[in-house]
Amino acid sequence: MPKRTIGAVPYIYPVPIVMVGAVVDGKPNYATVGDCAIMGIKPATVVVSLAEGHHTTQGVVGHGTFGISIPSTSELPLVDQFGQVSGRDIDKSQIVESFFGELGNAPMLVSAPVCLECRVIETVDVEHRCIFVASVVQTHVDEAYIDDEGRIAPMNELDPILYALDNRYYNVGKAIGVGYQVAREGDDS
Amino acid sequence: MPKRTIGAVPYIYPVPIVMVGAVVDGKPNYATVGDCAIMGIKPATVVVSLAEGHHTTQGVVGHGTFGISIPSTSELPLVDQFGQVSGRDIDKSQIVESFFGELGNAPMLVSAPVCLECRVIETVDVEHRCIFVASVVQTHVDEAYIDDEGRIAPMNELDPILYALDNRYYNVGKAIGVGYQVAREGDDS
Repeated sequence: MPKRTIGAVPYIYPVPIVMVGAVVDGKPNYATVGDCAIMGIKPATVVVSLAEGHHTTQGVVGHGTFGISIPSTSELPLVDQFGQVSGRDIDKSQIVESFFGELGNAPMLVSAPVCLECRVIETVDVEHRCIFVASVVQTHVDEAYIDDEGRIAPMNELDPILYALDNRYYNVGKAIGVGYQVAREGDDS
Repeated sequence: MPKRTIGAVPYIYPVPIVMVGAVVDGKPNYATVGDCAIMGIKPATVVVSLAEGHHTTQGVVGHGTFGISIPSTSELPLVDQFGQVSGRDIDKSQIVESFFGELGNAPMLVSAPVCLECRVIETVDVEHRCIFVASVVQTHVDEAYIDDEGRIAPMNELDPILYALDNRYYNVGKAIGVGYQVAREGDDS
């Protein structure tokens, strides 16, 4: 299939929608963020990119810590709202219920099934963006989504919000294969 | 809902499955990667994390460039295979059809609907991982997925492969909202 060039567009999809929490002026604040990813399992490393002028960014830079909370689709209106309104204009700590873990300044959302406490280990500035590479210090999972052997529920039960540069939110579809087995099954067929 | 701590696990989901291409020993090689994200729109910036010992990593370090190709679910067997087998052991350039764009050493997959040419602007080393922050130089989209106004098809038509740390692949579900509108609609209801 012939391809068309469209200029420099960072069209990676899907984008995972997370809420990045930081303490600003003594209060938890949250930004809706899609620029976020796993960077390594052992050691547990993640990356988040924030606009340097954002209210949350100030808290991450000030404390060197942040929380990542992964909301479910039932929270989409809140998620979309927090992506549009700055913590300078509203006190988001009054709208959602926060909790803290080992790090004192990494606020997370009680309502999110999975939350990560993170400590910044390196910052890369690219023009007006702050790219924070961070260690995960502790991971918190709702009891409803973890079994007695410590296995976390399948992703479609966690029901995260996906986003893409077509400016739409999506949910997860169905499981289509098991990692490191599909190739073998494909070979057999 | 009470939460349980599970130690430091970078449980961000969904993970976007992409193929990172680099030229190694004069030939295109590809690694299946989930540690990849948008870091900014303007300037178009992305991040990819690779294990330092991987064959593809050698090409990215050597040339300072790489390609990102985003496969569709129909390519899952290939994607899963390329995640298991090193380019040291098989010549992946013989299995897939590659193309190049403006950068001479950023191979991309003809079969992928969306491909990005990237130039490394900063590398962060975290133990045995190389985290490459990169500028997108050019983006290539299959003619079938772009209309006359230059709009790319909705994500569920692009049909990418998602992954999560439950070690399952998933497809995208359905659109559940439009960005920056859901909050307002929620307020109305």
